[in-house]
Amino acid sequence: MGKRALEKEGKFLNYVKKMEAYDEALQLIYWDMRTGAPKKGLQQRSQVIGVLASEYFHMSTSEEMAAFIASLSGKKETLSSLGQKTLEECKKTYNQNIKIPPAEYKEYVILQAEAESVWEEARAKSDFEMFRPYLEKLVEFNKKFINYWGYSENKYDALLDLYEPGVTVKTIDKEFSALKKTIVPLVRNIADSGKKPSKDIFWGSIPIKNQKEFSLKILEQMGYDFQAGRLDETVHPFAIGLNPGDVRITTRYNQNDWRTAVFGTIHEGGHAIYEQNISQTLIGTPLCTGTSMGIHESQSLFYENIVARNRSFWVHNYHLLKSYANGQLDHVPLDDFYFAINEAKPSFIRIEADNLTYSLHIIIRYEIEKALFNDEVSVKDLPEMWNAKYEEYLGICPNNDAEGILQDVHWSSGSFGYFPSYALGYMYAAQMKHAMLQDLPSYDELLENGELLPIKKWLNEKIHQFGKTKKPLEIIQDVTGERLTADYLTRYLVDKYSALYAL
Amino acid sequence: MGKRALEKEGKFLNYVKKMEAYDEALQLIYWDMRTGAPKKGLQQRSQVIGVLASEYFHMSTSEEMAAFIASLSGKKETLSSLGQKTLEECKKTYNQNIKIPPAEYKEYVILQAEAESVWEEARAKSDFEMFRPYLEKLVEFNKKFINYWGYSENKYDALLDLYEPGVTVKTIDKEFSALKKTIVPLVRNIADSGKKPSKDIFWGSIPIKNQKEFSLKILEQMGYDFQAGRLDETVHPFAIGLNPGDVRITTRYNQNDWRTAVFGTIHEGGHAIYEQNISQTLIGTPLCTGTSMGIHESQSLFYENIVARNRSFWVHNYHLLKSYANGQLDHVPLDDFYFAINEAKPSFIRIEADNLTYSLHIIIRYEIEKALFNDEVSVKDLPEMWNAKYEEYLGICPNNDAEGILQDVHWSSGSFGYFPSYALGYMYAAQMKHAMLQDLPSYDELLENGELLPIKKWLNEKIHQFGKTKKPLEIIQDVTGERLTADYLTRYLVDKYSALYAL
Repeated sequence: MGKRALEKEGKFLNYVKKMEAYDEALQLIYWDMRTGAPKKGLQQRSQVIGVLASEYFHMSTSEEMAAFIASLSGKKETLSSLGQKTLEECKKTYNQNIKIPPAEYKEYVILQAEAESVWEEARAKSDFEMFRPYLEKLVEFNKKFINYWGYSENKYDALLDLYEPGVTVKTIDKEFSALKKTIVPLVRNIADSGKKPSKDIFWGSIPIKNQKEFSLKILEQMGYDFQAGRLDETVHPFAIGLNPGDVRITTRYNQNDWRTAVFGTIHEGGHAIYEQNISQTLIGTPLCTGTSMGIHESQSLFYENIVARNRSFWVHNYHLLKSYANGQLDHVPLDDFYFAINEAKPSFIRIEADNLTYSLHIIIRYEIEKALFNDEVSVKDLPEMWNAKYEEYLGICPNNDAEGILQDVHWSSGSFGYFPSYALGYMYAAQMKHAMLQDLPSYDELLENGELLPIKKWLNEKIHQFGKTKKPLEIIQDVTGERLTADYLTRYLVDKYSALYAL
Repeated sequence: MGKRALEKEGKFLNYVKKMEAYDEALQLIYWDMRTGAPKKGLQQRSQVIGVLASEYFHMSTSEEMAAFIASLSGKKETLSSLGQKTLEECKKTYNQNIKIPPAEYKEYVILQAEAESVWEEARAKSDFEMFRPYLEKLVEFNKKFINYWGYSENKYDALLDLYEPGVTVKTIDKEFSALKKTIVPLVRNIADSGKKPSKDIFWGSIPIKNQKEFSLKILEQMGYDFQAGRLDETVHPFAIGLNPGDVRITTRYNQNDWRTAVFGTIHEGGHAIYEQNISQTLIGTPLCTGTSMGIHESQSLFYENIVARNRSFWVHNYHLLKSYANGQLDHVPLDDFYFAINEAKPSFIRIEADNLTYSLHIIIRYEIEKALFNDEVSVKDLPEMWNAKYEEYLGICPNNDAEGILQDVHWSSGSFGYFPSYALGYMYAAQMKHAMLQDLPSYDELLENGELLPIKKWLNEKIHQFGKTKKPLEIIQDVTGERLTADYLTRYLVDKYSALYAL
């Protein structure tokens, strides 16, 4: 590599490093705002956010950035691998941001803020008509954005690409259809079986202090690094990666249902273990984060479902949980407990759904968004479409808009194309689990002994370390030797729920 | 005011607002680092600090800033009062920063970092010789800075001005000398009196939870606004103002001595109430902070000593404290308790000193620094000078360098001229108290009834609201109608300690 090329790459990487520093400061501000920043300081804090975010945005679309892209794109072969991948990422962001006329984008940002607060009120009043004009405008804006960005096969692909780069309608149609074909009859068979776990297992309260201590012990088993993170309490739990040495999680405690905190902590812990184990060499570049929403979700769901809702996991940990439960679980046999934490039952609200029906909630949203952006349905007809699909797939019909079309925050902030990531994540996780079994055939035995570290090590090596240097489908191909397929998830679900419900 | 002048001022204030936004982000990072940021993330976090601090420094000395100063200084009469004061502040910082050659400053920053870690080791080993070469270099650098900055009467004035703008050697010499003349014999008389509070009053432990609850109740009485702040725990307590709506404090709990947390919290609470009550109109300018170290200290000492070490304060609160003390104080009469929290007794370590002898610790440091920067003593002779002064003023001689010359962190970071602020703060506080009595003659009665809010209101109106728009001596003149004088502090000390020790 020539000296001049090296210098140019160095300057580019320094420029990017500065952007990432602004971003890390922003992330800390967001964390702080959600974990106890004093209310009266927030108005001025939002000015600070404005300055840092503008500076970041400005740098991502500046003439200087354009010059880096122009001069370095022509001679990629002279760049280091890190330089190349960073350039690609910056180019993508540049194109996304530069193509929307600034005045239009500003209008859109204002609309987003308005729409979110109208949505909150509309949901509280269960009144879709109130939210409809805002949703219509949000959809119109996104349709325009799609045209600015371009797409090859399906308009909706342009939105999917924002969250799950490289995954298209063609792929999702095929896999979601397979998923639907398995889950819909499975849910019906479960209902027909008349089998139900005992209801009173989770009644009675466990002190929050105990829930916290138990959660911390599980995080430790998982290999969450407390020297590189911390656990706080918030209403809406989340994981946030400031850098690989500082990945924080939060959880919510419900005195009357310990499952909220425990499975919530494990879920966020899965996200955090991903971010904690991204290669240090990627620090200071936009590559130093999870590669997509779906792959991120695959890691949280891996720990939450494939690990912590596995019977073997509780062979090791049920005794420990009992020791914190003030005698409440002492007379519940492990199998009853295991059945209860895996109950499957159709319900209206996505975020409260069980792990079998959850994917159906996602598929419904996917089908609606796809129809919307291909002009096959108009916003005013969405409640009807929503309710019909719930009836068809889950056998239940929402009583009102609040428990139907208005339940999710995503659309009010213009996040279209996001939902599929949740079900893709589950699919990725099941396919990864299958691959993991080749390397760790004693998987269940490890769980029974509380040995979760080999699992973490495998995920670190196969997935985490790469950050954003590998795209989602590339990860799946490299890890499993196959293309993405719903087969492993459908098999996993059929095996698990047939056994649970003795179908 | 012409439209063009208004526009120019607007641009300038916007520029400054951006600088302050970077600063607020930096303050949040500092707070986070001290209250529980994960260790492994700190290396990358210091990169973020580097980027933001460089940007701030760059903006304070940029050609753009120079152009603002040049074009606006000539037409001050066209500026708003806010614009004028902001310009003055920026000009001062500009001159301070621009006059030091960048290469020299860089060398100095590296030296600071090295010196601090060497100092830590030297103190642990009680070995001044180990630290001496670093101290010599730090002093040499500061002597050069003094020459760059200039001074009118005394070289040391240039350093004093960094922390207490407008206060000079001439003023301090006069007032410290009066202070010394009163305190030195007072301390001796106390020793001669043979009177001592009962030692066992503070033995026995109060649970940290109780100490915390009591501290929170006192903060509430003081009028610290919890919607604009929060209380955390750190090894070294501090108050930090991010903006007037977000001023956080920390405290340290010692299970075996509740005084650490309670008086520490009240002290930091005093700092915080200052910052919480700066006028909102100053937000986004460098004026939105306490005007000097000394005035800041006057507010913390006002609450810690003039309020919370007053007998009347405990007439109201002693019962409350007892209720948290598990019966330990039940048999201690109020007067014994009051005597014990005001014990005066010479000791070696400044930060553990009582409120009478504390000023002598400061005066010693002041005299040493003044001699140092006027070439009347060389670094190698400092331990001898230190020990002689402790012998002369306090009647005790340090046994080694660790409990003598090496005890403070300040010099290791090159902070010369800082120490006097502590004693000036006490002097300011006593002078303010005298003025307050004209407006609130029932001061002691208010304390006896736990009515601290009129005191806060008075401080808000007279001092806090102005932030940095008034200089320290201007505040004193405006609030008390007199120039700064040690008279009120000496009277306060003589009255208080004569009564306590029945002299």
